[in-house]
Amino acid sequence: VRTLKLTLAYDGTRLVGWQRQADGVSAQGVLEDALALLEGARVSVHGAGRTDAGVHAIGQVASVTVGCSHDAATLQRALNAQLPEDVRVLAIEEVPSDFHARFSARSKTYRYRIRNAPIADPFDRLYTWHVPETLDVAAMRRAAASLVGTHDFAAFQSTGSDTASSIRTITRSEWQEAPGVLTYEIAGTGFLRHMVRAVVGTLVEVGRGWRQPASVAALLAGGSRSESGPTAPARGLFLVDVDYH
Amino acid sequence: VRTLKLTLAYDGTRLVGWQRQADGVSAQGVLEDALALLEGARVSVHGAGRTDAGVHAIGQVASVTVGCSHDAATLQRALNAQLPEDVRVLAIEEVPSDFHARFSARSKTYRYRIRNAPIADPFDRLYTWHVPETLDVAAMRRAAASLVGTHDFAAFQSTGSDTASSIRTITRSEWQEAPGVLTYEIAGTGFLRHMVRAVVGTLVEVGRGWRQPASVAALLAGGSRSESGPTAPARGLFLVDVDYH
Repeated sequence: VRTLKLTLAYDGTRLVGWQRQADGVSAQGVLEDALALLEGARVSVHGAGRTDAGVHAIGQVASVTVGCSHDAATLQRALNAQLPEDVRVLAIEEVPSDFHARFSARSKTYRYRIRNAPIADPFDRLYTWHVPETLDVAAMRRAAASLVGTHDFAAFQSTGSDTASSIRTITRSEWQEAPGVLTYEIAGTGFLRHMVRAVVGTLVEVGRGWRQPASVAALLAGGSRSESGPTAPARGLFLVDVDYH
Repeated sequence: VRTLKLTLAYDGTRLVGWQRQADGVSAQGVLEDALALLEGARVSVHGAGRTDAGVHAIGQVASVTVGCSHDAATLQRALNAQLPEDVRVLAIEEVPSDFHARFSARSKTYRYRIRNAPIADPFDRLYTWHVPETLDVAAMRRAAASLVGTHDFAAFQSTGSDTASSIRTITRSEWQEAPGVLTYEIAGTGFLRHMVRAVVGTLVEVGRGWRQPASVAALLAGGSRSESGPTAPARGLFLVDVDYH
């Protein structure tokens, strides 16, 4: 019996999310089904984070305990041969038996991509939110910087979250500009339900001049979800990296 | 009455190709339907080239005669609001009435993209051919260079072509390397049915060491389609540019 750490990429477009559900295709579901074929028995895979329907991953991490004795490279080839084209195993490594993709994670990094040009790019449409208006990126950067630190993110949490506390620590929150594409990266020890998308929806309102950069810091000091911006579309969001050290 | 030149991009994944067909969604069909709504009458659009099912375009050109008096920018916005997300009008300009997207074209450029890495990229899978094996790019470059000039491309023409002559002039034929992606660009005065994909299928056989670079020049001196390589998948092919000067 061995514990394996799998690094995964998936295009979330047609997925109901990471988590297996009664209906629809999930990343966890196709991975468990592919592993079950190799193991000859039902297998449970644990993911570092539950990406929502339509959200992508380029560095999701999952842990699983298996009995089969294939080496990692052989197992990776066998899994990728079995998985649908929109889900790929990028790496497999053997880890100590107490490793758990979710509970051992120290921090996660998410990326949000915005197509910021008058015309949408048909080849990037599934992987960006199209915002045609000119945005004040300097104001968005100031507002983004105010998120770094330990704060109560209740104003950026979807109703229906069931966590005990909405206090989280953010270590990085910044915008990068490339021609036609704005990219936001946020890293932290944990994230609430829909938190990154609510943050992006709010920062874009800052960029449109609908709210002041300083209003974002005010939301961290006791704001409610109704005062922050809309939830940005799932298609722009990527789980980029999970850190375990 | 005015003649317009439209520059178009489309993701060919779900399209039956450029040309309107009895069944399925075509780029010409959705464009004619969107223009007909604005004109209040049936409109015929002429494309520079008939891309096949699954082939993409980032610079297809179409010409059309319209009666409506909207300026080009307004017409472009109205069309993009009407068109499906996978087809975009990138530019519209008014041209002399004798302009015809197909007959006025002097040359075309196509691009073919190969994902050349052990694992496919889920986000690029619809826009590349995945070739996991290591390829001899230097040999592919030598073979590609031998296509430049005026030759009989009968060996790279799909059966069922109905053109009078299979002689064509190629002005550029080269491979570019980036990490994990090989890109082939070919420019010429005209192309036969499936010609670029047959050329790429043959050049990849050179890269795999299955045939010598010099064998490609031999195919131009009297070879038949059965002697060249397979037709590369449509998903890697892009119509990049049509030149009129």
